[in-house]
Amino acid sequence: MQTRIEHDTMGDVEVPSEALWGAQTQRSVQNFKIGTEHMPRPMIRAMGLVKKAAAITNAELNQIPQDLSQYIVDAADEVISGKWDSQFPLVVWQTGSGTQSNMNCNEVIANIANQKLGNPLGSQKPVHPNDHVNRAQSTNDSFPTAIHVATAIQINELLIPAVERLRDTLQRKSEEFNDIVKIGRTHLQDATPLTLGQEFSGYVAQLDHGLKRLKQALVWIYELPLGGTAVGTGLNAHPDYAEKAAEQLANLTGLPFITNPNKFEALAGRDAVVFASGALKTLAASLNKIANDVRWLASGPRCGLGELLIPENEPGSSIMPGKVNPTQCEAMTMVVAQVMGNDTTINIAGASGNFELNVFMPVMAYNIVQSIQLLGDACNSFDEHCAVGIEPNREKIDYFLHNSLMLVTALNPVIGYENAAKVAKTAYKQGKTLKEVAVELGFVTAEQFDEVVQPEKMVHPNVK
Amino acid sequence: MQTRIEHDTMGDVEVPSEALWGAQTQRSVQNFKIGTEHMPRPMIRAMGLVKKAAAITNAELNQIPQDLSQYIVDAADEVISGKWDSQFPLVVWQTGSGTQSNMNCNEVIANIANQKLGNPLGSQKPVHPNDHVNRAQSTNDSFPTAIHVATAIQINELLIPAVERLRDTLQRKSEEFNDIVKIGRTHLQDATPLTLGQEFSGYVAQLDHGLKRLKQALVWIYELPLGGTAVGTGLNAHPDYAEKAAEQLANLTGLPFITNPNKFEALAGRDAVVFASGALKTLAASLNKIANDVRWLASGPRCGLGELLIPENEPGSSIMPGKVNPTQCEAMTMVVAQVMGNDTTINIAGASGNFELNVFMPVMAYNIVQSIQLLGDACNSFDEHCAVGIEPNREKIDYFLHNSLMLVTALNPVIGYENAAKVAKTAYKQGKTLKEVAVELGFVTAEQFDEVVQPEKMVHPNVK
Amino acid sequence: MQTRIEHDTMGDVEVPSEALWGAQTQRSVQNFKIGTEHMPRPMIRAMGLVKKAAAITNAELNQIPQDLSQYIVDAADEVISGKWDSQFPLVVWQTGSGTQSNMNCNEVIANIANQKLGNPLGSQKPVHPNDHVNRAQSTNDSFPTAIHVATAIQINELLIPAVERLRDTLQRKSEEFNDIVKIGRTHLQDATPLTLGQEFSGYVAQLDHGLKRLKQALVWIYELPLGGTAVGTGLNAHPDYAEKAAEQLANLTGLPFITNPNKFEALAGRDAVVFASGALKTLAASLNKIANDVRWLASGPRCGLGELLIPENEPGSSIMPGKVNPTQCEAMTMVVAQVMGNDTTINIAGASGNFELNVFMPVMAYNIVQSIQLLGDACNSFDEHCAVGIEPNREKIDYFLHNSLMLVTALNPVIGYENAAKVAKTAYKQGKTLKEVAVELGFVTAEQFDEVVQPEKMVHPNVK
Amino acid sequence: MQTRIEHDTMGDVEVPSEALWGAQTQRSVQNFKIGTEHMPRPMIRAMGLVKKAAAITNAELNQIPQDLSQYIVDAADEVISGKWDSQFPLVVWQTGSGTQSNMNCNEVIANIANQKLGNPLGSQKPVHPNDHVNRAQSTNDSFPTAIHVATAIQINELLIPAVERLRDTLQRKSEEFNDIVKIGRTHLQDATPLTLGQEFSGYVAQLDHGLKRLKQALVWIYELPLGGTAVGTGLNAHPDYAEKAAEQLANLTGLPFITNPNKFEALAGRDAVVFASGALKTLAASLNKIANDVRWLASGPRCGLGELLIPENEPGSSIMPGKVNPTQCEAMTMVVAQVMGNDTTINIAGASGNFELNVFMPVMAYNIVQSIQLLGDACNSFDEHCAVGIEPNREKIDYFLHNSLMLVTALNPVIGYENAAKVAKTAYKQGKTLKEVAVELGFVTAEQFDEVVQPEKMVHPNVK
Repeated sequence: MQTRIEHDTMGDVEVPSEALWGAQTQRSVQNFKIGTEHMPRPMIRAMGLVKKAAAITNAELNQIPQDLSQYIVDAADEVISGKWDSQFPLVVWQTGSGTQSNMNCNEVIANIANQKLGNPLGSQKPVHPNDHVNRAQSTNDSFPTAIHVATAIQINELLIPAVERLRDTLQRKSEEFNDIVKIGRTHLQDATPLTLGQEFSGYVAQLDHGLKRLKQALVWIYELPLGGTAVGTGLNAHPDYAEKAAEQLANLTGLPFITNPNKFEALAGRDAVVFASGALKTLAASLNKIANDVRWLASGPRCGLGELLIPENEPGSSIMPGKVNPTQCEAMTMVVAQVMGNDTTINIAGASGNFELNVFMPVMAYNIVQSIQLLGDACNSFDEHCAVGIEPNREKIDYFLHNSLMLVTALNPVIGYENAAKVAKTAYKQGKTLKEVAVELGFVTAEQFDEVVQPEKMVHPNVK
Repeated sequence: MQTRIEHDTMGDVEVPSEALWGAQTQRSVQNFKIGTEHMPRPMIRAMGLVKKAAAITNAELNQIPQDLSQYIVDAADEVISGKWDSQFPLVVWQTGSGTQSNMNCNEVIANIANQKLGNPLGSQKPVHPNDHVNRAQSTNDSFPTAIHVATAIQINELLIPAVERLRDTLQRKSEEFNDIVKIGRTHLQDATPLTLGQEFSGYVAQLDHGLKRLKQALVWIYELPLGGTAVGTGLNAHPDYAEKAAEQLANLTGLPFITNPNKFEALAGRDAVVFASGALKTLAASLNKIANDVRWLASGPRCGLGELLIPENEPGSSIMPGKVNPTQCEAMTMVVAQVMGNDTTINIAGASGNFELNVFMPVMAYNIVQSIQLLGDACNSFDEHCAVGIEPNREKIDYFLHNSLMLVTALNPVIGYENAAKVAKTAYKQGKTLKEVAVELGFVTAEQFDEVVQPEKMVHPNVK
Repeated sequence: MQTRIEHDTMGDVEVPSEALWGAQTQRSVQNFKIGTEHMPRPMIRAMGLVKKAAAITNAELNQIPQDLSQYIVDAADEVISGKWDSQFPLVVWQTGSGTQSNMNCNEVIANIANQKLGNPLGSQKPVHPNDHVNRAQSTNDSFPTAIHVATAIQINELLIPAVERLRDTLQRKSEEFNDIVKIGRTHLQDATPLTLGQEFSGYVAQLDHGLKRLKQALVWIYELPLGGTAVGTGLNAHPDYAEKAAEQLANLTGLPFITNPNKFEALAGRDAVVFASGALKTLAASLNKIANDVRWLASGPRCGLGELLIPENEPGSSIMPGKVNPTQCEAMTMVVAQVMGNDTTINIAGASGNFELNVFMPVMAYNIVQSIQLLGDACNSFDEHCAVGIEPNREKIDYFLHNSLMLVTALNPVIGYENAAKVAKTAYKQGKTLKEVAVELGFVTAEQFDEVVQPEKMVHPNVK
Repeated sequence: MQTRIEHDTMGDVEVPSEALWGAQTQRSVQNFKIGTEHMPRPMIRAMGLVKKAAAITNAELNQIPQDLSQYIVDAADEVISGKWDSQFPLVVWQTGSGTQSNMNCNEVIANIANQKLGNPLGSQKPVHPNDHVNRAQSTNDSFPTAIHVATAIQINELLIPAVERLRDTLQRKSEEFNDIVKIGRTHLQDATPLTLGQEFSGYVAQLDHGLKRLKQALVWIYELPLGGTAVGTGLNAHPDYAEKAAEQLANLTGLPFITNPNKFEALAGRDAVVFASGALKTLAASLNKIANDVRWLASGPRCGLGELLIPENEPGSSIMPGKVNPTQCEAMTMVVAQVMGNDTTINIAGASGNFELNVFMPVMAYNIVQSIQLLGDACNSFDEHCAVGIEPNREKIDYFLHNSLMLVTALNPVIGYENAAKVAKTAYKQGKTLKEVAVELGFVTAEQFDEVVQPEKMVHPNVK
């Protein structure tokens, strides 16, 4: 590999000739050969947005010349677009402040800009990675700002639409299934009936709540650390910088970012991320319930509950029809397990700040971004490849409903509690239906039974 | 032990003669000899409140006679007061729906009421535990309602005031310490200065945010399952029951309870608790940061950072003065570890509902109530026995500040970057102060140094 | 409340007149009003054992007179027996080293001994809590030793026998059920058959493995910190003390305790507890699988899988026979959720030592002891009230087996793959059995079908 | 993109023309667009090893012809080597059994083999992905076998050598630092002295224990599911297959793999992975303690503890010498947070098996492999870039030691307890050293003080 020599305050470093990154990134490449997890795309995009907002604000406040600002903005736009992701070679397991990824971004942007102006890589002219791209910033405020920006964008662009889409599908199913009365189950045991639509309405309500909780969590994510610089005091920044830079980020993203009124909390705490992860794990708990219900209700084809039919997306068994493995449910529940583990990681990391800084930022960035993406993608996948195709197995639903013993309660007013109990016990012992037994025992005629035992009357409050 | 015979649908049970509980509770005592963790006081109080609200509502809707309602209300008031906690012998590790604790409450209230009316224990007359105390309820809606009521009360009565109290103390300290300039620390390394008041303002901001997050989480806790009865359909309840019972609970507690608009979600999901635990663990992360900072800043007396003095509450060492173990910080960080573990438990439990019911309710109740109480008590204890007595060790703070090399940056504009770096390097190598070296090297006079190097000018945005 | 005045190096303290504890305990009572969780019984017993072993060893090494040693031993025996648990009023949330509980034990033992000798409470004569009971100890080595002793005793006395008992029951069931061929289920979907005995043999194997893992974990629990004194150097201890005291603890408990060869690790790390919790959570994972399988296989009575019948321990439904809520399974799975949360707490606590000490010891003690007890008690309860009474529902098992389509594979060699597939597809579409369809389509006679399709030949390796 | 048409039992699929994978892989690519986490390299290697061992065993047992076996072996060797990793496009979030990754491996191996023999991609001749590559296997036994093989290889090849290397470095440091007496710290407060070598010996002991625990955990990882086929019965396998295939895997890897004696546990439980993760998180707890101690002891340069000097790997501050951010410690502690979160994920996944299968396998594979790699890489990185370069700051260590008040205890025997206490209190109040005060107060001469107060005598058991 051909290299060029760059140097920083510690001396010379060999950097691959064509790399847009510089000395500081290269040192990190060499010093942190840990794992394979790179800074994720949403973080690169967010760092680009932070650099762009800073450049615009710095020009506005006369901290850098307008032309340099424009060079940075243009280069940052390319970083934001994803064009240069290959130039971000650093892993998550680096400096706990994310300094090296911040420098990586500064170096790449400076090199893109300078190269366009005809200067060689590493020239640092006219755009200097520190003096201009990182102007009025420290990693300590710029990197956590990127975490907030990435989190906010991913929740808004990916996760919320995905949850809404699944919610809408389930809502549609709930309406479609509204007349299908089925046996209820509590403790996994047969219980009083409800409609399949009601059952699905519970899923819809869970997701509706989940969406609102995400929005509650975003309130704190929208508060940005930018402007705190190294320790929260704003040293080396203009007094108006924090507020204006946050406004710029709001403009650039269309999201209501504001500057965090307390920069000491903003740098040393990462509570907003901890809480956002709390909203994500709650959503995960809801999705686990939904995916589990679907796979149990679709269990079978012959030896399970079999009340639902789900799409067959892959060959199950070449010889056995009807064996449809609930693979989308399985992917979803694995995602849930991951999100819950990520939450533990985020809790530990978030609790571990000291004094003016939390140095568990890259691991928090990695986990929150992963949790958001996995939940978003899994909702879309589950929706497209499973939820939209869920159909009721009406025959099986009816069979269970009428085979169940729970309906006996409807006979109480007519034949009395003791006779009703006798009907149920006999049916259970002899393996018969309630109707068979009730008629056999002479308590009612078949017609009377059908008139009295109407499960559809048992699916709402019924006392006067 | 003397016993009386009670019976339920499974037959006879021997119950201790004087026990206010009955057959179903007794079966649970015998069948679940697991651990020592009893249903906590806040849950007993909440179950009492639910029974009281149900009785009032049932009378209002003409479901039970007014006099029976009043008997139940009076008995429930005694349960609410804590007078009969000894009559709740059941452990957490029982039926996952909490049925046995619900029956325990029904039995105790019926027996209190009947005993007052001169009837023997177990008579079930005139107040019947099922037909009257449990009227229009199933454990499946009544027990999770109690979880919500207990959570809401404990957060409002215990936790929020405790956090506010600690916040206020720290706010006062922040103001008191506002003029004390100190060295900042990032990566545990010396950084640019800030004031001790600023450092404490970060803690205040964390707690302020934490309080707001608790209130966000309460929104969902205020939505009650009551009225869903067995599977969410409201079977055996009056159509107006759910809404009116929630109103009663709001009246009785002064908290804005409403009925959950979707009872299927309300019974089968416990997401509101999962999310509330998410707010608690976030608060825990904040408190961990605060307690850790305090104990590190108070480390010493001679061989630590020693910038803070904390109250000495227990004998440290009989011979060594100044050794003050940061025991309140230790209690706090242990509480944090517990709350984070409880959060894992609640996540697993909350994700594990099936069909119409979540049967991990007692363990969720136990953990959320414990987390709230531990955080509330720990905040109060930390406040009273530590925070209020925190004092700055001004001598040590000044020593570090002026001994630090970070202040050299202030010399840049006067003697140039290179000379400033030379001053710092020499000082570091020779173990001297910046001032000593700067004067020795002839760059400035002592007076000039003092004029230029004013750390108090470095604690806010300073660029124009 | 009447009080007496005691004093320590910080001054006077009012102690309840009859309390066996003294000044230091009382200060903790006042300073740590946090939660309701007291130091658990197994820890009190273990602290008593440590004090007893220390007293014997100190006499042997001529560090305290023989008569004082004997007074301490006698008093410690009473503490060990549980007679004085009410004299241990301290909560878990105290000094992170457990100093206050250690002093509590020293004070109680001294007072018991002195009172027996006719001296008033608080006299500290002739037995002094520090100089004699705590002789050659620091809390820093004595308290973690108590954690190891408590853990070892509880695993050996409670947990291992409980797991063995459940294992034996399941082994017996596995043998009883060895001839019962049933449908297998993977992905919750019908799969090739196995015997119910084979299914249960998997549970037995899980518990067998779990028992061996507990024993692997105990290896490190048997290594004791005692003798490290304050920082691991053994200052103020006799060179032979560590080894001899460990021998004494081995004698007293019958467990193979040895002294940890490195006392610095022994004081500052609590890795043995972290690993033991790792064995407990693994056991919990196994028990979760078992309890879940049992409750799903027992689901019904009509609308579930219904292959197993489990004991009915409590009234399910007054009118509906056969509704047997799997309450023991629910208690078990709630215990599992708790143990997994406790594991998170222990991980965080165990990772948080600094320099010469880990100050998260009480919370680790509390959680490990709780996990052991809950798992042990839950195994016993699940065994007694569920496992021993598990019976197969042969009719249901047979129905599923023969109704299933998976058996069609046995027809391949006789009628060819394509015809077999046709049989299965037709059966699925028309809701018939394989046999019906195979005969109807004229591929085989009923007799041939029965000869060829023998599920019991499909339950072991069958290729030659 | 050019495509070719392949088909499976569900119909036609368009596969990229040059892809070595086939229809089933392609369906998964299309159906699971979730996240960016691909099946990791160690799993691909392990799947290759399983296929190779199966092919050899199948030939040996005359289940497939020798030449076909050899084609598979040759192709598998290329997969094992890593040459075809780009042909494994599937993500972790797929079927919970890993079926699609297993089919991916079957398809790739068949295509490699057939292509070499001059047949087109997708020809399935002469080597058929199912009939030959997957012969005598089901995903249900083959995929978990790959998890065990990957885990065992990665622990043996990567993690154990890395931990040993760091252990050896720390051992060397411990010996080098053996004469350096320093202040001890408990509760972050000054305590009695120990040597720096002793402090490091604690780290060595933690890693020594950690290595032994890894080996304990491997015992269960060495037990392989292979041979259980679909549900554990071994249907469609030769009776000798399981044992012989495990022997082959032992031969191929040099690791002591054996066949799991109970295949029902082997398929439905993943307890061995849960326990292995327990050993990993324990190691993580140890590493957290070590990395934290190092960064705190290296804190400064002026305003921290500063007892250790660590290598400067990246520019800290351009102007401030001596500011060395403990970046390797930060990377390590972030890895620890990740491993603890992964452990939570693995616990949830491992506890979630049903009946004959656990369908959380890909997520378990992903997390265990990540935990191993992160810990291994982080140990190597921490060793190379930090531990080997740790040097004591003797001046600072001495300063703290002699400035401390803890040494006063050595004066007790000479000047009495009360005078010693007076010396300490005066020194603390006046900010002087013990020696200054002891001499000033006339209790000893300077020479006497130096003779009596010898910290190096306080670092071992000293009582006779």
